[in-house]
Amino acid sequence: MNFKTYMNEKRMMVDTRLAELLQTDVTPFGPLYEAMNYSLMAGGKRIRPVLMLSVLEALGKNAAPYLDIACAMECVHSYSLIHDDLPAMDDDALRRGKPTNHVVFGEGIAILAGDGLLTFAFELMARQRHIDPDKIRQCLYTFAHAAGPAGMVGGQAFDLQSEGNKDIGLDGLRLLHRSKTGVIFKAAIDMAAILGDAEPSQRQALDTYALNMGLTFQITDDILDIAGDEAILGKPVGSDVKNNKATYVTIFSLEEARNMAQKAAAAAIAAAEPLGEKAWFLRELVSYMLVRTM
Amino acid sequence: MNFKTYMNEKRMMVDTRLAELLQTDVTPFGPLYEAMNYSLMAGGKRIRPVLMLSVLEALGKNAAPYLDIACAMECVHSYSLIHDDLPAMDDDALRRGKPTNHVVFGEGIAILAGDGLLTFAFELMARQRHIDPDKIRQCLYTFAHAAGPAGMVGGQAFDLQSEGNKDIGLDGLRLLHRSKTGVIFKAAIDMAAILGDAEPSQRQALDTYALNMGLTFQITDDILDIAGDEAILGKPVGSDVKNNKATYVTIFSLEEARNMAQKAAAAAIAAAEPLGEKAWFLRELVSYMLVRTM
Repeated sequence: MNFKTYMNEKRMMVDTRLAELLQTDVTPFGPLYEAMNYSLMAGGKRIRPVLMLSVLEALGKNAAPYLDIACAMECVHSYSLIHDDLPAMDDDALRRGKPTNHVVFGEGIAILAGDGLLTFAFELMARQRHIDPDKIRQCLYTFAHAAGPAGMVGGQAFDLQSEGNKDIGLDGLRLLHRSKTGVIFKAAIDMAAILGDAEPSQRQALDTYALNMGLTFQITDDILDIAGDEAILGKPVGSDVKNNKATYVTIFSLEEARNMAQKAAAAAIAAAEPLGEKAWFLRELVSYMLVRTM
Repeated sequence: MNFKTYMNEKRMMVDTRLAELLQTDVTPFGPLYEAMNYSLMAGGKRIRPVLMLSVLEALGKNAAPYLDIACAMECVHSYSLIHDDLPAMDDDALRRGKPTNHVVFGEGIAILAGDGLLTFAFELMARQRHIDPDKIRQCLYTFAHAAGPAGMVGGQAFDLQSEGNKDIGLDGLRLLHRSKTGVIFKAAIDMAAILGDAEPSQRQALDTYALNMGLTFQITDDILDIAGDEAILGKPVGSDVKNNKATYVTIFSLEEARNMAQKAAAAAIAAAEPLGEKAWFLRELVSYMLVRTM
């Protein structure tokens, strides 16, 4: 199977399941569920769930029984975007070419839609009765720790406080990226390792892979903000520069950032080598990140 | 032991543990942790965790091993208050006699402090390795379901949309109260029943108790909003009337509301009767609710 087909197949699995999970005919809470669905089904890349499912397959497991865990990751991703876009945060009016949640439903409902998606994600994970409960417990811990105040929420707070302050330097930037994006990719891979009974040597390979693929993703994200195509991205480019944010492109040159992304990608691909033929998608995913346009 | 001593002892256990859980010296996320701590340690009544711990003791169990689960409930309660007070929601500037979170830390950090407390609560529950993992899974499911879009978050959205609309009637009011407060009390009791291996007959008694004690709490809350003492409550009275909200006091008379609270309390006390001597606190808790001043 080629990369595109695999990616689309997994994405479709996730999309289909997500659409089933949050039906909007919940009387009398329909309007809240509509707001949750609006952002959840806005056509994201589903990279986090696809990554988790593909690591399971790289470990030789059937990924299907773990689809809901992967979907829970997307619910949390969706919540984080809704809250990040709020006027009190990044104040963005467009996301994936569509008006952001609070623009459509108002700030109050947008805050609650985010809260609802976050809480629902944990409910969804905890209701997987066919999975060994201690693995569920470990996954819940791993994911909540990554998404919480010591991880993603902490990164967002740090970002909010250092906005317009390019002086956080490379250390600050690394911390920001690791806590905002890296920890979640790492959690996707860690959860797959827990659910897929990874051997210690496989765990080690996956850890190095996670670190470098997260970095690749983030640097290319910074590059896209300056060199991307608005029509494809569905949002204005250049907002990081405008907001005087520290990114790999504002601290380094575009050229340097491209070199750093390539180095990280090569390191990720090398790390996945010992996982063998079954891990082909993990290697191609990193190459795809280098050339992605959205 | 008398009621006050028991209540204070349990509350102190919870307060001490909560103060340990979220240290603010988390470099570089200190400011976020400060904001979380500010609301978490603002001196709440800790009714939800105390309720959970006391049901465990009513079932003849040692409550101490489950203290962190009880504390997780308080983290979620604290998150819900921070988000409810936001300008886009109830827009309250005072809570427990102190400026609300967003007034002190700004809206962005207040939203993130809420997100952080909510996510941390699930992390805290999932890291209890000394408890049977399937019981942890069941508790996580019970609590996330109660706190999520089908429960508390749904209730808050319904409240937001029906604000200034007294016409939701008694059915709407019941739904609002059940989803905003009742489900969380019910979850506290359900989690204690799961952790404490309640027999089916005990479960049944606890279910009826939960329903009626939640109702007692909510009606007295509505009464306090109109007849309470601002200095003791730490917030202005009469805000429900001002905001034209449907409450037991705006739909019924103060007299009628008092009668309904007394009836609900009597039903809760009767339901706890079969649980025997060990459940004395559950009965006295309901009597206390009738006469509470904050």
